[in-house]
Amino acid sequence: MSGYGWFHPFPTRWNDNDVYGHVNNVVYYAAMDTAVNAWMMTQGGLDPQHGEVIGVCAASSCEYRASGSFPDTLTVGVRAGHVGRTSVTWETGIFRASDDELLATGTFVHVFVDRDDRRPVPIPDALRAAIERELVVEDR
Amino acid sequence: MSGYGWFHPFPTRWNDNDVYGHVNNVVYYAAMDTAVNAWMMTQGGLDPQHGEVIGVCAASSCEYRASGSFPDTLTVGVRAGHVGRTSVTWETGIFRASDDELLATGTFVHVFVDRDDRRPVPIPDALRAAIERELVVEDR
Amino acid sequence: MSGYGWFHPFPTRWNDNDVYGHVNNVVYYAAMDTAVNAWMMTQGGLDPQHGEVIGVCAASSCEYRASGSFPDTLTVGVRAGHVGRTSVTWETGIFRASDDELLATGTFVHVFVDRDDRRPVPIPDALRAAIERELVVEDR
Amino acid sequence: MSGYGWFHPFPTRWNDNDVYGHVNNVVYYAAMDTAVNAWMMTQGGLDPQHGEVIGVCAASSCEYRASGSFPDTLTVGVRAGHVGRTSVTWETGIFRASDDELLATGTFVHVFVDRDDRRPVPIPDALRAAIERELVVEDR
Repeated sequence: MSGYGWFHPFPTRWNDNDVYGHVNNVVYYAAMDTAVNAWMMTQGGLDPQHGEVIGVCAASSCEYRASGSFPDTLTVGVRAGHVGRTSVTWETGIFRASDDELLATGTFVHVFVDRDDRRPVPIPDALRAAIERELVVEDR
Repeated sequence: MSGYGWFHPFPTRWNDNDVYGHVNNVVYYAAMDTAVNAWMMTQGGLDPQHGEVIGVCAASSCEYRASGSFPDTLTVGVRAGHVGRTSVTWETGIFRASDDELLATGTFVHVFVDRDDRRPVPIPDALRAAIERELVVEDR
Repeated sequence: MSGYGWFHPFPTRWNDNDVYGHVNNVVYYAAMDTAVNAWMMTQGGLDPQHGEVIGVCAASSCEYRASGSFPDTLTVGVRAGHVGRTSVTWETGIFRASDDELLATGTFVHVFVDRDDRRPVPIPDALRAAIERELVVEDR
Repeated sequence: MSGYGWFHPFPTRWNDNDVYGHVNNVVYYAAMDTAVNAWMMTQGGLDPQHGEVIGVCAASSCEYRASGSFPDTLTVGVRAGHVGRTSVTWETGIFRASDDELLATGTFVHVFVDRDDRRPVPIPDALRAAIERELVVEDR
């Protein structure tokens, strides 16, 4: 589980399992979305309800390697990939907490926009500083 | 938070919040469902994938007292209310973990049925014993 | 399916089914919440993003009679039960669209509050008029 | 909306909207998963509960172009991209039903496996025939 700067615990829920008895593929995106937003809110100064700048998802992807199953807890590792002027590509690894097995890897591109007109704006300084301090990982 | 025999942590997810910025009312039912099934699987011997007996929901209800908001973690307290021959009424209290404020109380009736014909069957002995040992609370 | 003033189609989704192959109990609350809010937005003048008055859920309940399963479409029938000064109790019947079998009945209490201070306010006049015109059903 | 062989209606739900008032990015994956599985079950002979072969997701991706918002109905267009021996890459376009605006495009790779040992198996003949008949689109 090296190679990530932040780890977010993501316990599964009863109905995350689909009829095949495994965590549905869609849930991994909820895990990435939750981990990245939790980091931005608690570490990066994002205020989803009142801030002038919000992050919107422009693209995402996931590759699946193994299955999780309720009541597993997942651990979402997050690091910054490309950090541009108005966007960040987050890179994630999703592990089963009980044995650290890697279940999936994913990417998630956030574009930062003005809350009102939804046009791209530079990444806020405080957020950029937090990203560089906590999520830019050398050993990937 | 006295009065419950089991507490299940339930971290919220980014999209549990609705457009009003609070955890949507539906999520509290997912919290109850998750807590009760986690307890039955880890403490009560329920095997959702292979067991002969499964629990199906016959009725549920919830009263809301205060709001939670992502990234709050909720804590779901569970106790057994009425324990019949083929059914159990679970009683739950859902708290905000950071300050133990009670956000909602709910009930959830499970009827135990045969996996194949879905007709009611007696509560399995091991489950009944676990309920009486862990979830029948005097001081309610 | 008589006895309701509004019917909202609610197609199920792949992962609405739980591991037992039936629509999870929690989904019925999402169906009620969706039907009632769709009615309020399209027929009753509710503007969740900008309006001064919003509806918050104070209590809800559901009784389950039969199972649905993806890819069923559900039909949510809605009528007004008690209509108070600041709150409405919605009464719903959830049917399988293919054969009109009643799967569940539920209630859902909305209290109308000021968006900013979240204190109860009278039901807006336009909404009350729409409720009385469309959702107060004599033949219940 | 040309270029797809199957269109699946996907009405949004109240809480699909996130706090920013738009359909959350994760929901688009639920839309793809739902559309593809509905097609396989109703047109391609897939039996998720009893069939010997099931489809598991190996990879997925989505690019977002515009926003949807409850109570919009989305329309998911589906076609087959690469059709291999044991896997299919589905290509999807997700439109707003009211004006046919393209909101997102996505891909979704299903690997077909034996239900019990979860090892890859050839695409069932009936499913392959249905794919070639209905979802292989020349004009892409």
